[in-house]
Amino acid sequence: MKDRKILTGEDYIQSLRGRKLKVFLMGEQVNEPVDHPVMRPSINAMARTYDLALEESDLATAMSPFTGERVNRFLHIATNAEEVVLQNKMQRRLGQLTGTCFQRCVGMDALNALYSVTYEIDAQRHTSYHARLKEFIQQMQYHNTVIGGAMTDVKGDRSKPPSQQADPDMYLHISKRTKEGVYIRGAKAHQTGCINSHWLIVMPTLRLQPDEVDYAIVGALPVEAEGITYVVGRQSCDTRSLEGEIEAGNAEFSGQEALIIFEDAFIPNNLIFMNGETEFTAMLVERFTAFHRRSYVCKSGVGDVLIGAAATIADYNGVEKASHIRDKLVEMTLLNETIYATGIAASYQSQVTSSGAYLCDELLANVCKQQVTRITYEMARLAQDLAGGLLVTMPSEADYRSVETGPMLEKYLRGREDVPTESRMRILRLIENLTLGRNAVGYLTESLHGAGSPQAQRIQIQRQMQLEFKQQLAKKLAGIEESRS
Amino acid sequence: MKDRKILTGEDYIQSLRGRKLKVFLMGEQVNEPVDHPVMRPSINAMARTYDLALEESDLATAMSPFTGERVNRFLHIATNAEEVVLQNKMQRRLGQLTGTCFQRCVGMDALNALYSVTYEIDAQRHTSYHARLKEFIQQMQYHNTVIGGAMTDVKGDRSKPPSQQADPDMYLHISKRTKEGVYIRGAKAHQTGCINSHWLIVMPTLRLQPDEVDYAIVGALPVEAEGITYVVGRQSCDTRSLEGEIEAGNAEFSGQEALIIFEDAFIPNNLIFMNGETEFTAMLVERFTAFHRRSYVCKSGVGDVLIGAAATIADYNGVEKASHIRDKLVEMTLLNETIYATGIAASYQSQVTSSGAYLCDELLANVCKQQVTRITYEMARLAQDLAGGLLVTMPSEADYRSVETGPMLEKYLRGREDVPTESRMRILRLIENLTLGRNAVGYLTESLHGAGSPQAQRIQIQRQMQLEFKQQLAKKLAGIEESRS
Amino acid sequence: MKDRKILTGEDYIQSLRGRKLKVFLMGEQVNEPVDHPVMRPSINAMARTYDLALEESDLATAMSPFTGERVNRFLHIATNAEEVVLQNKMQRRLGQLTGTCFQRCVGMDALNALYSVTYEIDAQRHTSYHARLKEFIQQMQYHNTVIGGAMTDVKGDRSKPPSQQADPDMYLHISKRTKEGVYIRGAKAHQTGCINSHWLIVMPTLRLQPDEVDYAIVGALPVEAEGITYVVGRQSCDTRSLEGEIEAGNAEFSGQEALIIFEDAFIPNNLIFMNGETEFTAMLVERFTAFHRRSYVCKSGVGDVLIGAAATIADYNGVEKASHIRDKLVEMTLLNETIYATGIAASYQSQVTSSGAYLCDELLANVCKQQVTRITYEMARLAQDLAGGLLVTMPSEADYRSVETGPMLEKYLRGREDVPTESRMRILRLIENLTLGRNAVGYLTESLHGAGSPQAQRIQIQRQMQLEFKQQLAKKLAGIEESRS
Amino acid sequence: MKDRKILTGEDYIQSLRGRKLKVFLMGEQVNEPVDHPVMRPSINAMARTYDLALEESDLATAMSPFTGERVNRFLHIATNAEEVVLQNKMQRRLGQLTGTCFQRCVGMDALNALYSVTYEIDAQRHTSYHARLKEFIQQMQYHNTVIGGAMTDVKGDRSKPPSQQADPDMYLHISKRTKEGVYIRGAKAHQTGCINSHWLIVMPTLRLQPDEVDYAIVGALPVEAEGITYVVGRQSCDTRSLEGEIEAGNAEFSGQEALIIFEDAFIPNNLIFMNGETEFTAMLVERFTAFHRRSYVCKSGVGDVLIGAAATIADYNGVEKASHIRDKLVEMTLLNETIYATGIAASYQSQVTSSGAYLCDELLANVCKQQVTRITYEMARLAQDLAGGLLVTMPSEADYRSVETGPMLEKYLRGREDVPTESRMRILRLIENLTLGRNAVGYLTESLHGAGSPQAQRIQIQRQMQLEFKQQLAKKLAGIEESRS
Repeated sequence: MKDRKILTGEDYIQSLRGRKLKVFLMGEQVNEPVDHPVMRPSINAMARTYDLALEESDLATAMSPFTGERVNRFLHIATNAEEVVLQNKMQRRLGQLTGTCFQRCVGMDALNALYSVTYEIDAQRHTSYHARLKEFIQQMQYHNTVIGGAMTDVKGDRSKPPSQQADPDMYLHISKRTKEGVYIRGAKAHQTGCINSHWLIVMPTLRLQPDEVDYAIVGALPVEAEGITYVVGRQSCDTRSLEGEIEAGNAEFSGQEALIIFEDAFIPNNLIFMNGETEFTAMLVERFTAFHRRSYVCKSGVGDVLIGAAATIADYNGVEKASHIRDKLVEMTLLNETIYATGIAASYQSQVTSSGAYLCDELLANVCKQQVTRITYEMARLAQDLAGGLLVTMPSEADYRSVETGPMLEKYLRGREDVPTESRMRILRLIENLTLGRNAVGYLTESLHGAGSPQAQRIQIQRQMQLEFKQQLAKKLAGIEESRS
Repeated sequence: MKDRKILTGEDYIQSLRGRKLKVFLMGEQVNEPVDHPVMRPSINAMARTYDLALEESDLATAMSPFTGERVNRFLHIATNAEEVVLQNKMQRRLGQLTGTCFQRCVGMDALNALYSVTYEIDAQRHTSYHARLKEFIQQMQYHNTVIGGAMTDVKGDRSKPPSQQADPDMYLHISKRTKEGVYIRGAKAHQTGCINSHWLIVMPTLRLQPDEVDYAIVGALPVEAEGITYVVGRQSCDTRSLEGEIEAGNAEFSGQEALIIFEDAFIPNNLIFMNGETEFTAMLVERFTAFHRRSYVCKSGVGDVLIGAAATIADYNGVEKASHIRDKLVEMTLLNETIYATGIAASYQSQVTSSGAYLCDELLANVCKQQVTRITYEMARLAQDLAGGLLVTMPSEADYRSVETGPMLEKYLRGREDVPTESRMRILRLIENLTLGRNAVGYLTESLHGAGSPQAQRIQIQRQMQLEFKQQLAKKLAGIEESRS
Repeated sequence: MKDRKILTGEDYIQSLRGRKLKVFLMGEQVNEPVDHPVMRPSINAMARTYDLALEESDLATAMSPFTGERVNRFLHIATNAEEVVLQNKMQRRLGQLTGTCFQRCVGMDALNALYSVTYEIDAQRHTSYHARLKEFIQQMQYHNTVIGGAMTDVKGDRSKPPSQQADPDMYLHISKRTKEGVYIRGAKAHQTGCINSHWLIVMPTLRLQPDEVDYAIVGALPVEAEGITYVVGRQSCDTRSLEGEIEAGNAEFSGQEALIIFEDAFIPNNLIFMNGETEFTAMLVERFTAFHRRSYVCKSGVGDVLIGAAATIADYNGVEKASHIRDKLVEMTLLNETIYATGIAASYQSQVTSSGAYLCDELLANVCKQQVTRITYEMARLAQDLAGGLLVTMPSEADYRSVETGPMLEKYLRGREDVPTESRMRILRLIENLTLGRNAVGYLTESLHGAGSPQAQRIQIQRQMQLEFKQQLAKKLAGIEESRS
Repeated sequence: MKDRKILTGEDYIQSLRGRKLKVFLMGEQVNEPVDHPVMRPSINAMARTYDLALEESDLATAMSPFTGERVNRFLHIATNAEEVVLQNKMQRRLGQLTGTCFQRCVGMDALNALYSVTYEIDAQRHTSYHARLKEFIQQMQYHNTVIGGAMTDVKGDRSKPPSQQADPDMYLHISKRTKEGVYIRGAKAHQTGCINSHWLIVMPTLRLQPDEVDYAIVGALPVEAEGITYVVGRQSCDTRSLEGEIEAGNAEFSGQEALIIFEDAFIPNNLIFMNGETEFTAMLVERFTAFHRRSYVCKSGVGDVLIGAAATIADYNGVEKASHIRDKLVEMTLLNETIYATGIAASYQSQVTSSGAYLCDELLANVCKQQVTRITYEMARLAQDLAGGLLVTMPSEADYRSVETGPMLEKYLRGREDVPTESRMRILRLIENLTLGRNAVGYLTESLHGAGSPQAQRIQIQRQMQLEFKQQLAKKLAGIEESRS
């Protein structure tokens, strides 16, 4: 990392240059991700988190007790419910501005979860992780870095725990210990924005057993650390970025997912925040996922874009006043605001932890995420309904630009006569982008599996649903005396 | 009203005696509703709002700036978002404790809406409604009364506005004006808890046209005012209250809905809070319904009871560990918390009005209510699924008590051997009560139509959905220049 | 049974008289069910199956190869797919005519299932059940009787099989064997129309283990057989039949569910159709439930009534042309026809069994029933939406008839001015009847649990879903060679 | 068309060569579509309709009364219900075999609809269209051609009818009439498989007004007719066909959609089947869409592939026995069979027309299609749920083949140890193909808009829902006398 504070999006983009990462994409090594047309849109999205901090600083920065300055909210530890809510409001705004996953939440959620968990480990085990973490956070705030959280192991055979996998590397683990620190081995899958980050924090992905000590490692590494390889995920329509601007649908912004492979990468002692305390892994996973599941409120920002796009194509087609069209837009709004409201409620109902940091409501956070896994798909269906069939039968931008077919398309792809054909094509490509194409990945499938697949939320809801309390309410009203049953 | 402050539920019940109301139920005049077995459960539910204030005073009372004392929260004007949220928390709690509609919200929502609306009328029209209202509220707080809000007109032919109805009384209106006040005529339908109230506030039910001045009347009357007749609604299984306690399902609590007919009832000037200002009727309706739609959070409290009952019957049947049973309870919890979260978010996002009173977020309030209209029905279906068919084929309590059939039923209606048959019967009757019976009325159909039928929420959502802003977001990402379309 | 052929509905009603059944309802013994106002509507519904056979004989009768005459279709063994389909068409028609459960399907489905199963038992075990059954069917056809199928045991602790229940009577079983026949003991719950039947056929309710021989009994008994007690289920709003005609909602027709207790009732050898062949119990249950699950097509007939009622109240309210009203009626139609279509497809895809009788498609039959468990509830919600809140707040018929309140209600409960108030009240009571009241039992809860609760259908779907075949389809298209995985 | 009968898929592919069509794709003219890697998979899918006729001739051929020989079922006029049903069974089978849209249905549905409509035009207008059509069909059957039906106009401003569009060419119309025939002008959008066809039949897309005579043209043209330009639609992930085989997901098969532009193309008199009879356009549209909407049963075949793929990935991940996994496969099966059953019921309930040809049930056909518009999206969501996040984060085939990253991916992308990593990648790419990629176009968006957008089905359902009949049913049960209201 360059030794200066990153301020603007442009600063950020420059800060990524020349890191000599080992990145692979579509069979080739990428020397400079910043200049790769397929990767650049994901970098632009992350950059937006910097510029927003300058444009709307109340929303996207917070006063840090560690630095005494306003810092980017993505690097801030929330110490009251209002601040937790503001994370959500910032996330919705960034979803509106980028129409995609801007990738910086995972670090925010990891720092906020680790802050309270390290405090509790130290209290019980007399370790000093919390002080180390504070020091680390202070540095990050000072430089205004991007931190990627690396949690999801590749898992191998899902019916088996880490220690019973045929290949021990299916879960990331310590491969060697030295006086200076530890070496780690394994891989983390589905790593959002990792190549666009400056630092990675590795964390275990599930509740570990006492004999799985080597898997209980939390620590930070620079993205360019030795021994790390990145293989970028191949996604729907990603190569459209190599074609025309219309074709891309959303030419400026995209998400990014990669597989990270750690081959004996090193973490020095001062950057280790958990080392073998297996009994705290469940707490870490639960707190991190609580934060992160509620972070899916960002999808309501993307949903705003989708609603806007659907309303626009209806308008361009001349049907914006039909009652069934209006009603579908109302339904989309109802669903989209349900995502937002469940997230806001989860954040608002935050409780203080012993560290002083606030933790969102775990039950509602899981409710938020579970709703996201259903609602975004229904939103996509409704948007495609409003778009009309041209969404998937429209000729290419190249045909539109061609002298042979361009005039025909100009004529026949026109909707309302006062709307340029190109505008109609552009809005359709945006809807395609969000529902089938490159940003459908983030809006749909990542909404399903990010921060844990749907069943993971159901398990958490089951743990939190207080059946006994509710059974007592019911028995009282039914006139069943406790002794009776 | 008796000249003393009502403290306990028991005080409240006594306060209702001897009012000589003109109440009809099932073809007969009811001399003393308090003693009528069909009506009493609804009075018990209202009484619970008094006892809760004593048991959990942080939750159910608030410091009044008007009296300088803690007053029942149902009579309090919320002047910050936290207080609006606390209304919701109190509502959920009362839903949990009663398993029905406790009927006191409509007054709370009416006072809170009128507080800001009268302020704005006065500011523009130089009237003095706001001061009158404050005086009225202070009195109510002092005596700790129940206020019923009377908004819904009978409406006649819904395709016609008030002034074009064949019968002008289809909407409540001023029938005579005197120096001392006004006389009103018409009827209000679906009046929740009105007979259990001490005072009624009448309000117009829709946006009025400039020539509909006589319909623009807001004012307070004591429930026992001359010229008022109450006809209680006939509801599913209401006569079960005349039979055994098990049979009732929830023997202690129920809701209450009545038709109120005003035949030239009088409102003195000091109790008139709007009189002809038709241009403010829309504002009043919107603010009141915003508050009241979010008040449907109470159904998450009733939902807690239903979840508890469903979990109990699963337990009694010996299937509580089956994965599909657990999953249905998770689904119910997910849905129930979605109601809660949307309400909480609406309340939390309250904004200050020029009067200083806070107004909940109108969009989210409508989202909350619209979700309630769907979710409660799905909850009921899931609860019936978990209950099993015995829910609707179980012999009566009388058969269970009978010497001839009792022993057979004791034997054959038993589920798990260690659970008394009677407990199993009781919990099934509670589920029947909530999904088909007396309290299904409040949990389902009132959830659908109370505070406005589903389409009314959709119209409000449409008004609030900010399509233009969202279209701009989409156009920007699609690369459509404003001038282009 | 009287020694003459029953022709008309009236004949049928007379045939039920004087049987001296041991019937209990609401704590009292019912001497003559035919004359009991709460029970009579269920008898009227059954009677409708006789009259329909006279009115629409192509639909409701079939040529019997056993008697050489046209017989009621409910007593006919279908020997081609068209006849199986015609059962469904008759069922929908009766649903339309009665708006409730007409109770005669279970016998039809039992005979059709037993016909093929007894054939296969005989083929393998050299028994003579099939010939006995044919003889029995011929007698039934000749006399035109009603047969009730009695399958569902009370089950006790659902986590335990019959042989491990604390009380062995939780599943019906043979209590004594003599040369002349067997005595049975136990109880059958949720027995649709049993008191309105002439004969009962008892059948095991689940797949039995080899050591559960005494539970593997199938045989016929007259309803009036010694040792049988009937306790009628207490249902939502059933006592409305004791009040006014409007109040009942559907005064003429209802369903009927009872608990049947067998205390050593006797079945002579010639009426025994299975006796200890435990290995055939699964086949019997599967075939019977396949037929019976598809029989829920009747709910599309009831759905037609509900759609008609919803359209009528919209019309009476003056809103029948609003687009959202029309759209909800379209949605109801879509859902209702989906029930119908899945049933028809299941019947049409019937396959011949070795007995020559046709068996409907088991997968589609389960699909039909599972859809019914969801669709009817959504239909009810939509109908309540269209009905408006008056559905549950409307004063009683007695108030409407009263001189004191009648005129007020006449005035204020009127919708469109050209529609009598009474008509509006009647249609609302019908919707209440179907969605909360007496016939909601059959339309909703029985739709959920009748012929097996939802999970039972899912288990059958799982058994039939041919995953291996589908995996091969997918692997082929994905280019996965069989040897590879 | 070559002067010989096409028998095999290979024959068919050869028959397409050398036609010198004017086809454009991604900005370039395609000289020989057969050899274009992006177009070839769609040709393979069509070819499958030929091979199936040889492999399963009972299913995919029928005896033609016109040629006296068995002909491909896609070219056959169904003259009984069984034959209409067999169309559906063939469609499901082809969906299973190709996992995409095989494109030949539109011609089948057009011929079957035109057969009865031309008969009725002739009967009323004394024209001779029917004889011409029969002659044409006989020729088509003899040569075993592919016929594309061209119905959907580009429509311009959807708020305006054809005659009021700013540009008259927004709907296809006759531009010139001569003694020998007519010239047509305009464009047809979303034309499934048109380039893969031998003949096109143009048809009006909506009910025309009496003064829109020039738009009322039905006729046949060879695909290679002068004056026709084809611009192929640009679809999600279509260029994956230029990359590796794994990457394509389904390398062998795809759909095809193009825009067809007619610039004064000629139709000779003997190939004109309607010419100005505007009053028959509604009948044609309704009959064609009835057939075609029910044809969406093919999606249940594609659904079989998706279920198989989802089950396979669950198996590869080692979670195939988890109860929630099984339940999601059951849900997919339930939904998929609902599509199938509604289609089968629509076909089975076909009625004879005066021409002798059978017409499927219009109400149920619309129900089938409407269900398809919802079910396929829910199926896709469930399949993505079962797939896991790797679905959208998996590195490319090129990375898997690369020496640098291949071994890492081989190791880390493995699920169950006994399953080759490549198999896991392949099945994930197939699910991506069906839910986001190239065949998601046909499975999802085309399911939504093909044969008319969702609202078009709702309008048809509204027309067919027989409200008056249903209102009478309800009024009778409610005791409302006809004269009363």
